[in-house]
Amino acid sequence: MAVGLQPPDTLLPVPGIRLATTAAGIRYAGRDDLVLIDAGADATIAALYTTNAFCAAPVVVAREHQSARPGRWLLINAGNANAGTGEPGLAAARACCEAVAEVVGGDARAVLPFSTGVIGEPLPVERITKVLPTLHAALVPNGWMQAGRAIMTTDTVLKGGSRRIELSGGTVTLTGIAKGSGMIHPNMATMLGFIGTDLAITEAELLPLLREANGASFNAITVDGDTSTNDAVVCMASGASSATLATAEDRETFMRALGDLCLELAQAIVRDGEGATKFVTVAVESARDEAEAARVAETVALSPLVKTALFASDPNWGRILAAVGRASVADLVIEQVAITVNGVEIVRGGGRSPDYTEAAGQQAFAQDEIEIRIALGRGQAVARKYTCDFSHEYVRINAEYRS
Amino acid sequence: MAVGLQPPDTLLPVPGIRLATTAAGIRYAGRDDLVLIDAGADATIAALYTTNAFCAAPVVVAREHQSARPGRWLLINAGNANAGTGEPGLAAARACCEAVAEVVGGDARAVLPFSTGVIGEPLPVERITKVLPTLHAALVPNGWMQAGRAIMTTDTVLKGGSRRIELSGGTVTLTGIAKGSGMIHPNMATMLGFIGTDLAITEAELLPLLREANGASFNAITVDGDTSTNDAVVCMASGASSATLATAEDRETFMRALGDLCLELAQAIVRDGEGATKFVTVAVESARDEAEAARVAETVALSPLVKTALFASDPNWGRILAAVGRASVADLVIEQVAITVNGVEIVRGGGRSPDYTEAAGQQAFAQDEIEIRIALGRGQAVARKYTCDFSHEYVRINAEYRS
Repeated sequence: MAVGLQPPDTLLPVPGIRLATTAAGIRYAGRDDLVLIDAGADATIAALYTTNAFCAAPVVVAREHQSARPGRWLLINAGNANAGTGEPGLAAARACCEAVAEVVGGDARAVLPFSTGVIGEPLPVERITKVLPTLHAALVPNGWMQAGRAIMTTDTVLKGGSRRIELSGGTVTLTGIAKGSGMIHPNMATMLGFIGTDLAITEAELLPLLREANGASFNAITVDGDTSTNDAVVCMASGASSATLATAEDRETFMRALGDLCLELAQAIVRDGEGATKFVTVAVESARDEAEAARVAETVALSPLVKTALFASDPNWGRILAAVGRASVADLVIEQVAITVNGVEIVRGGGRSPDYTEAAGQQAFAQDEIEIRIALGRGQAVARKYTCDFSHEYVRINAEYRS
Repeated sequence: MAVGLQPPDTLLPVPGIRLATTAAGIRYAGRDDLVLIDAGADATIAALYTTNAFCAAPVVVAREHQSARPGRWLLINAGNANAGTGEPGLAAARACCEAVAEVVGGDARAVLPFSTGVIGEPLPVERITKVLPTLHAALVPNGWMQAGRAIMTTDTVLKGGSRRIELSGGTVTLTGIAKGSGMIHPNMATMLGFIGTDLAITEAELLPLLREANGASFNAITVDGDTSTNDAVVCMASGASSATLATAEDRETFMRALGDLCLELAQAIVRDGEGATKFVTVAVESARDEAEAARVAETVALSPLVKTALFASDPNWGRILAAVGRASVADLVIEQVAITVNGVEIVRGGGRSPDYTEAAGQQAFAQDEIEIRIALGRGQAVARKYTCDFSHEYVRINAEYRS
């Protein structure tokens, strides 16, 4: 069902970073579900976590550990989110980190735990700790594809990408993997993204870059508005290349690669959205400020009426117009608003465009890739949001998922 | 499909108010689709309109007319929303009002137009004006049931109710009708509510009462968040009873009746929601302030994940918990949060309630009427929102509606 999405043929190893996967039998049979990542002895790790107040135990522990000392190890499991599990859940997450520390001979606070899967079930700690020695022994630089597969839950396609860039200090690699299938479900919870690079950089330098890249990518995919309890995006820099962001040009080159990679991964999540049959970009322009542009884009991208019309390939432009109208834009002059869908102007001057024909609209809405472009005519600010349509399949998956 | 909803057996006539309906053939065949209401020579009319910036032509004209002079006549059509129609749409709405004024021998500004139906199609003015003399001649006090039926679009059940109350100045009647089928569609747009009473009251007195009643009723039904271009709630007071709100007790008695009637009509809209199989009340309590309570209730009531779980009768409490967690409640202490569903405690202290069993959860979620009660444990404020579940049928109706 994924819209225009293929798994990568290969993912570039990142000097200084090693990965291992194994089948711990946490929930699934016959597949890997546990990943250990070693970002290297000199690693810098920047991470962004869910803003959901009911954040999962591993999120609490990962934050705690990161504030205590630099991280080096990532332990990621699929099949169980360890969320809504209270005090025993925190103890379980801590026990896993301690077990990793024992096996690798380090400090438990250098281990960051991540979980994705069913909410409210106790994490099977022993199944995890039991396989850690094997997992540790299996660490290899070339483990990104396996890791990408091991973190999948309802994903139908492995999501990953690589970039290689030239900085003034030498060649730098970026490789990332992500999971999540569009409609975030706090049940089989979570969007997770892990990006590795061999750049040499401090956490203080890396975090704002990750935040910027995240804002235009993982934070720009609004699917059903449900922020999960476990969401996290992590960037690990091993420093193995010795290349730094020495010049403004280096910074720009790295930022472009990181932003581009994050966008590819985030869009892959939407393309693999539950029941998705279309990939939709909502681009708002000439807004008064960025917040306003983002609000309009999000209102349109989240409207169930717009999304069901897109599923039906029905050029029901009144639904787009009404969504713009309720996005709380102060003093919106509707005569200034213009809307195009895949280049076909559907709204101008507050009503149907004089050039619009139903045939042109039908052709535009029938595409798999839809770009809705909304000009507000009141400023210079822009925003883009990515979403998918709303199908029968979405209801089926989300209604029947657990039972 | 309507959940626990029956049409009224009868609706009480309201002294001083007369109604007439006819089949103008605006869009439907073989049914009435046009209503004229005469609220009386001394009528007071209070109205609340959509906040959507793309409000329809009749909303613009009704607002204009109301600010110019007291209204007396309401002209309501189904089948065409006269929205997204630009300048010609405004001219069409004005032409209809002028035609009414000519027939009744009054000022066009005493006529308030209301439309519901498809967006973006020209209003067939002539079909409307042609039947106005017949419509005017047909005005009767006992026309509420017919009017309720004539304003229906995708509604499956006629929505109306009556109350009779004793004030210090005598008996007062309230009768109301409403249309809308839960999921507001800006296509076959709109929620409309018309309430008549023979109370003697000024517009300045009536408007705040209507606003208060509306806040807890029509504004408390959040279905898919799509505010239509044509929404309006109107209260007409003919003054024919001569009874006024002379005492504090009168005010309280009237307010209770008006609030109760509005709530009955609003809940009927949700019960008739497109594809609805369950009627859901989300009651938030012990919030810091009302805005916070309303935000949490709305976030839960709008979550597609919660709504699909309700459709499936799946006690997937993690989805409710995650929705509460993302409702932007500052410094939420999750250990204080408790959630019950139909009396079964599912969450306590940030995790699954120790007393919870899957069997009890399944039984609670299997009911047609669901009450989700969320205690935030941080104050005294409360809020209630009403919604319905999210079914296959919703996607089918909204995807296939227009074509």
